[in-house]
Amino acid sequence: MELLKDKICTHGKIIDNRIIQVDNFLNHQLDIHLFNEMGKEFKRRFSGKEITKILTIETSGIAIASITAQYFNNVPVVFAKKHAGSNMNQHVYEAKVYSYTKDQEYTIKVSKDFLSPNDKVLIIDDFLASGCALLGLISLLSQCDAEIAGIGIVIEKAFQNGRKQIEGKGLQLESLAIIDSLRDGQVVFK
Amino acid sequence: MELLKDKICTHGKIIDNRIIQVDNFLNHQLDIHLFNEMGKEFKRRFSGKEITKILTIETSGIAIASITAQYFNNVPVVFAKKHAGSNMNQHVYEAKVYSYTKDQEYTIKVSKDFLSPNDKVLIIDDFLASGCALLGLISLLSQCDAEIAGIGIVIEKAFQNGRKQIEGKGLQLESLAIIDSLRDGQVVFK
Repeated sequence: MELLKDKICTHGKIIDNRIIQVDNFLNHQLDIHLFNEMGKEFKRRFSGKEITKILTIETSGIAIASITAQYFNNVPVVFAKKHAGSNMNQHVYEAKVYSYTKDQEYTIKVSKDFLSPNDKVLIIDDFLASGCALLGLISLLSQCDAEIAGIGIVIEKAFQNGRKQIEGKGLQLESLAIIDSLRDGQVVFK
Repeated sequence: MELLKDKICTHGKIIDNRIIQVDNFLNHQLDIHLFNEMGKEFKRRFSGKEITKILTIETSGIAIASITAQYFNNVPVVFAKKHAGSNMNQHVYEAKVYSYTKDQEYTIKVSKDFLSPNDKVLIIDDFLASGCALLGLISLLSQCDAEIAGIGIVIEKAFQNGRKQIEGKGLQLESLAIIDSLRDGQVVFK
């Protein structure tokens, strides 16, 4: 998706060989026009699929999923919680996720009230890196026996091999921008 | 806003005299159709105002702010971070916020890159209770000398007096539903 690649090149800050910060438009300040274009593109790529719900994960997936849902008949968005408060009830699906960026493990949770075996779920997230967060979301959906209709990612860092984690599962994975390398301060797209 | 009040009555779970859980449509599962109607209503209430940016706070404000931004010419949304990662730079405005619900103090942060003295900012949040989070957001904007164009709240719990915290500041505060009481397991709107 050219508009997204342009944004990455113009506003992305390469922190090191593995990390690019896109706070300007994706993770802290949100470019709502861009998000709408991404939503349209997800709709195009999953146009044949019946979707009843979008699942994402806090924090950065939420706005992307919400804008995208408008292109899928306003289906409900559910986000897995990383920072569940004490007033979250215990009737949840949960999965452990390891974050390489933050070097810590955390538990993601979704209330059982908001996923059902009848759901056909599109997973949306901002980044695909090592694939740990994605595997966590897939685990939540497996626990509930929901169908995974597809996976939509904004930026895939191909050199971190997240895609390999789900190969063989027969899932349609679509990334709007795929970065092959961040070496030498340069973004190289696939 | 009748649609919102209906949702609160139908799907809100009264936890005690002070807390109503609206996870079904606002805080965990997100009703995107409702969010669009809320966005239109915020636009109606702030129709005379020039807005260049929307400021909200993670987590639950993000989707509301993002959908609402579409009715304000797709202005950028910036969210204050509660859980800033170690890779957030130190060039930030910050404020301390006490959460009565969680009985803990936390620091909210916004990068200085995404707020400027030229901004005319609409603050959007899901709840107004004691007003601490709102005062934190106002503090961030004061530090940056940005203009506060207005404050849009989805659910105000009038019995927790958050509105009193900002009286006298000359700010337009609009709440889409105002709850006067949650006593005896009943939602009483103003």
